[in-house]
Amino acid sequence: MSDLEVIRFRPEPGQYAWTFGGAAPARRVRPPAVLEVYTEDCFAGRVRSESDLVSQVCQFPFLNPQTGPFYIEGAAPGDTVAVHFASIEPARSWAASTTVPLFGALTSTHLTATLQDPLPELVWMWQLDTAARTCRFTARQGSFGVDLPMEPMHGTVGVAPANLEVRSALVPDAFGGNMDSPEVRAGVTCYLGVNVDGALMSLGDGHARQGEGEACGVAVECAMNTVLVVDLIKGVSCPWPRLESDTHIMSAGSARPLEDAFRIAQHDMVTWVASLCGLDALDAYQLVTQAVESPLANVCDTNYTSVAKMAKRYLGGGAGTAAMDGAHARLRELASEYLRLPALAVRM
Amino acid sequence: MSDLEVIRFRPEPGQYAWTFGGAAPARRVRPPAVLEVYTEDCFAGRVRSESDLVSQVCQFPFLNPQTGPFYIEGAAPGDTVAVHFASIEPARSWAASTTVPLFGALTSTHLTATLQDPLPELVWMWQLDTAARTCRFTARQGSFGVDLPMEPMHGTVGVAPANLEVRSALVPDAFGGNMDSPEVRAGVTCYLGVNVDGALMSLGDGHARQGEGEACGVAVECAMNTVLVVDLIKGVSCPWPRLESDTHIMSAGSARPLEDAFRIAQHDMVTWVASLCGLDALDAYQLVTQAVESPLANVCDTNYTSVAKMAKRYLGGGAGTAAMDGAHARLRELASEYLRLPALAVRM
Amino acid sequence: MSDLEVIRFRPEPGQYAWTFGGAAPARRVRPPAVLEVYTEDCFAGRVRSESDLVSQVCQFPFLNPQTGPFYIEGAAPGDTVAVHFASIEPARSWAASTTVPLFGALTSTHLTATLQDPLPELVWMWQLDTAARTCRFTARQGSFGVDLPMEPMHGTVGVAPANLEVRSALVPDAFGGNMDSPEVRAGVTCYLGVNVDGALMSLGDGHARQGEGEACGVAVECAMNTVLVVDLIKGVSCPWPRLESDTHIMSAGSARPLEDAFRIAQHDMVTWVASLCGLDALDAYQLVTQAVESPLANVCDTNYTSVAKMAKRYLGGGAGTAAMDGAHARLRELASEYLRLPALAVRM
Amino acid sequence: MSDLEVIRFRPEPGQYAWTFGGAAPARRVRPPAVLEVYTEDCFAGRVRSESDLVSQVCQFPFLNPQTGPFYIEGAAPGDTVAVHFASIEPARSWAASTTVPLFGALTSTHLTATLQDPLPELVWMWQLDTAARTCRFTARQGSFGVDLPMEPMHGTVGVAPANLEVRSALVPDAFGGNMDSPEVRAGVTCYLGVNVDGALMSLGDGHARQGEGEACGVAVECAMNTVLVVDLIKGVSCPWPRLESDTHIMSAGSARPLEDAFRIAQHDMVTWVASLCGLDALDAYQLVTQAVESPLANVCDTNYTSVAKMAKRYLGGGAGTAAMDGAHARLRELASEYLRLPALAVRM
Repeated sequence: MSDLEVIRFRPEPGQYAWTFGGAAPARRVRPPAVLEVYTEDCFAGRVRSESDLVSQVCQFPFLNPQTGPFYIEGAAPGDTVAVHFASIEPARSWAASTTVPLFGALTSTHLTATLQDPLPELVWMWQLDTAARTCRFTARQGSFGVDLPMEPMHGTVGVAPANLEVRSALVPDAFGGNMDSPEVRAGVTCYLGVNVDGALMSLGDGHARQGEGEACGVAVECAMNTVLVVDLIKGVSCPWPRLESDTHIMSAGSARPLEDAFRIAQHDMVTWVASLCGLDALDAYQLVTQAVESPLANVCDTNYTSVAKMAKRYLGGGAGTAAMDGAHARLRELASEYLRLPALAVRM
Repeated sequence: MSDLEVIRFRPEPGQYAWTFGGAAPARRVRPPAVLEVYTEDCFAGRVRSESDLVSQVCQFPFLNPQTGPFYIEGAAPGDTVAVHFASIEPARSWAASTTVPLFGALTSTHLTATLQDPLPELVWMWQLDTAARTCRFTARQGSFGVDLPMEPMHGTVGVAPANLEVRSALVPDAFGGNMDSPEVRAGVTCYLGVNVDGALMSLGDGHARQGEGEACGVAVECAMNTVLVVDLIKGVSCPWPRLESDTHIMSAGSARPLEDAFRIAQHDMVTWVASLCGLDALDAYQLVTQAVESPLANVCDTNYTSVAKMAKRYLGGGAGTAAMDGAHARLRELASEYLRLPALAVRM
Repeated sequence: MSDLEVIRFRPEPGQYAWTFGGAAPARRVRPPAVLEVYTEDCFAGRVRSESDLVSQVCQFPFLNPQTGPFYIEGAAPGDTVAVHFASIEPARSWAASTTVPLFGALTSTHLTATLQDPLPELVWMWQLDTAARTCRFTARQGSFGVDLPMEPMHGTVGVAPANLEVRSALVPDAFGGNMDSPEVRAGVTCYLGVNVDGALMSLGDGHARQGEGEACGVAVECAMNTVLVVDLIKGVSCPWPRLESDTHIMSAGSARPLEDAFRIAQHDMVTWVASLCGLDALDAYQLVTQAVESPLANVCDTNYTSVAKMAKRYLGGGAGTAAMDGAHARLRELASEYLRLPALAVRM
Repeated sequence: MSDLEVIRFRPEPGQYAWTFGGAAPARRVRPPAVLEVYTEDCFAGRVRSESDLVSQVCQFPFLNPQTGPFYIEGAAPGDTVAVHFASIEPARSWAASTTVPLFGALTSTHLTATLQDPLPELVWMWQLDTAARTCRFTARQGSFGVDLPMEPMHGTVGVAPANLEVRSALVPDAFGGNMDSPEVRAGVTCYLGVNVDGALMSLGDGHARQGEGEACGVAVECAMNTVLVVDLIKGVSCPWPRLESDTHIMSAGSARPLEDAFRIAQHDMVTWVASLCGLDALDAYQLVTQAVESPLANVCDTNYTSVAKMAKRYLGGGAGTAAMDGAHARLRELASEYLRLPALAVRM
């Protein structure tokens, strides 16, 4: 633990990245390392009241600011980066959500193009109570209000894409990105296959909470103070983003139509379970079919994201801890130690 | 309670229905009433060992036998039938699952047509332990085995379709049918809009358990002994199947592509929440977006099914109990009384 | 020719069918036979002026009236019915088109559900000039007008479905039905696989013309006087509707999403070409890939329909005339003879 | 004409671009200008015999080499680049097509993921007869062969994307790219909205011919000698690629699922026709619905591409020639003059 590098990074306004790939590294990281970072909300902090309409205060394409990218030393194509979310805490006492014209699941869009008028553009300001761990919804019309549990997550975490591409920070795909999965919460490790030297990992788009599917296209958007433990798994590839908690392993597929996102995640899970349990592919297909949970992440972004989630207790013997070279358990332990200790080594 | 009619019905082999609509009523029911029924498994009981391949032992289209249909007296188009699942118990100590050529999510199909060979056809026999409440999976290759929790459900419950149609028992749609949702479990009330006089409700396709999405196309298929309490809600319509438990209200959309199933369920939930909470549609859209769970049901059937699920505690005041004229609470109470008592009045 | 039965059938208002399957035969036909029939337009003739809104004058589900069904004597499952369109002529000097709330490709629908308002409901009356063979479009706003070529077709032709089903006349599927393909024009033979004894063939939904995809959901709808020659091909199956003209063979796939309709049609064409030309499946895949035309039929109905169309001159030797036992050439010859002659034998 | 700049550019092996955006300009162009260019085939010329399997001889991501990008002087976001294809001629006497594992419409893919084995990988060598204007198909199994008409086209033409992105040369989207539309043939003008200064236009992926939909994923791939006339339309935007021939205007939508590609193209056509003809949007919707052709381009690439095609003769008065400031007629005239004349000014 004494050697664990700790990097603290709160970007200046001009320091955010707006793409996966194509941005110069913000910091270099010698894994394993702790990152204490600040992430701005998806609006770049510009929606601060009910009168701040996205179409007026935001400047396209400067949405979904990324903290990073971080150049992971030693990372090369064919390796996997493990990003353990040790802590995700709202950095403000409020969060914002909106409708955005021609964006979301229950409206036509630029792709699902219709001749109808867009929905009205509205902003909802949510009040966060970090002591009670609640997010307060207040209706725009009438007097209805309710507290929902605060369940902080990052909508976006990813690495530079393959195939020489640079993608908008609004895109989820095989490189991770804007998956908008509530499963990306504290205590979870995210595995991302490396496509370029240094991986160029970044994150952002904190949500104080979000329902599954993110129907209106926008969650309870909030700046975050987040602690990560990052490591490199050499020689292990990861075709699609995978997640691991103490109790579950997960795969995240992103594509359109939504059934393809589902297929990708389930296919990757079948392959992964077969490998972990020493099962024939069809036996793994049967086991996954009966045991899997399939929480939707988003049905509104450039690609839709579907997660396949298997309880480790169904995988038998040591299979549940063997995934990805045991990285989750190792990083979780490092995170636990770190969060109990004052930081030892800081390089900024 | 003394007036509650109780109908026990275990179909003879020739008495099953194979469609929604188009079959003569098996019994007439004066609501509210208790139904104690037996349902055969989706294979009509013909898959009983690893050598019983569906393509050899089953006779298309005689799959997914329906117990019913039940003619609900007084039911007319524009009304809603409430079907409360009081108890769903496996009728055997074993269950079967299979791959079926060109059926399932991780294979090409007759619709997602490719030139590839089908996957091999395999049967898995599952052992059920009703005392331990477990289903034992045994791999076909190697020695892997694991117990999964028994979580009995009905893949199929529905009424006669609208528009003069008769649909195969394998189809899920606005009339319910083969939704294959694990949410259809004991303790849950299913609401189905009535399309024809008498509604013609039937059910079948019991699963000892099933993962979300039913990836291989077949769950842990099992005959069931099921107790229902059925009632009629006059003058209340229900455009898509809705479900209610003690803690949640749910809508089930069925369509292709999967995002349309998602849209239907979320749209219906937004409409329903707006009505229950007295919210403007866009306020309800915002609340549902942040609070909803979106468990997938099936991504393999004629239509895919997606469920939108809202916790009642987020709906405020009495909204959580006001749904569908309070039918769930009423039927749940009748079910509790009945399950504690010997049956009083039986008509067979 | 002297033995060719000729049936003339103009349904009375109460004699139309509204489904595929489930309707009693209107006439029995001893194939080969000529049918001279009248078909009503998709509105059942109720939209006759700009003030006749579908939502007000039409009565759901009584849309898309079918002339028939015709019981084809001798037809049994596994056979194919050949329907040759000898002549399709508008029965009126006007036709109607409309927008229908929440129906069409450029609007949200009950399945692609959004929270937006529907498009306005409008009627366009088209003037038909059967001498000039034109359809005159007149804009509702402003003074724009233009003549388009009259290209009469039937949106709907089909047989009873398989699997004990009864489907609305608005549905296209493997049984044919509401495919809305401009390829179903005079001079073309349509092949439909038989699912029930007698086949129960019907037709309707005449269009004076239609663009590919039927974007607004409604074509230039017109009652038709149509002459068919119908025959039975014993022992030859037809998994999806096929079409044949003097110059092309075609397959029509119907499904959602649209890529599945495309896959079905292309897959069937690859299989058919392989069989006709004695090619390996992958050789046929290559040839079809480079030679096929892929006209869209509808992207608005319950299922979307995509057609794969191959020029016979690319199929070599006699392959182009061998399709379906040479039925097209035979029926085309019968049609030519019949249209030149007075009818010999009429049974009504 | 005397001032028309002519640029001849045949890239050296290391000079090709592999992306839209992100590549340094190969040449600067002062519009209007003539470009005489050589394009390599999609395999970078590495598939030259039946034994050259893509998976062995090609090096991902170095597929679909682009000639360019060309920096169009004066082009800025909000403008449109007009690319007139004056001549597209095969540069070799042979062309190649293949199956590629897990790529194409009639196979599972990395997105439509299944557990089935991939199709066999095969190469077909096509012989081109530039005098007879034919492409000869020879089956790999058996003796079947047939000549298809040579109809040269470019599968790929595009500009740098918006939103700071860099996309693989295999992607079709709003910036054009790998649309694989047979409509991109000699005599046609392609309009592309400018997203970055200089537009950065490139092209490649010549096909000696291709069926609609490109079912197997690969056309009759051939290096090309192509003559373009390029111009800049200042202050006119173009949201999706548009095409214009002497007889038709066209819009090309690219998305998944395929119905969204269809919607985009039809929506853009409705908007365009409304603007050209002074029609209300719903009147244009009606006219387009009845008059449009909808040729599919590809149903295999990252996005699927659907084209909406309207005959100019249906647009009335001068509308048919007014599109895009009359650029097509102007460039076509320049092309005609140029192709009759020796080049006057060459800068390489």
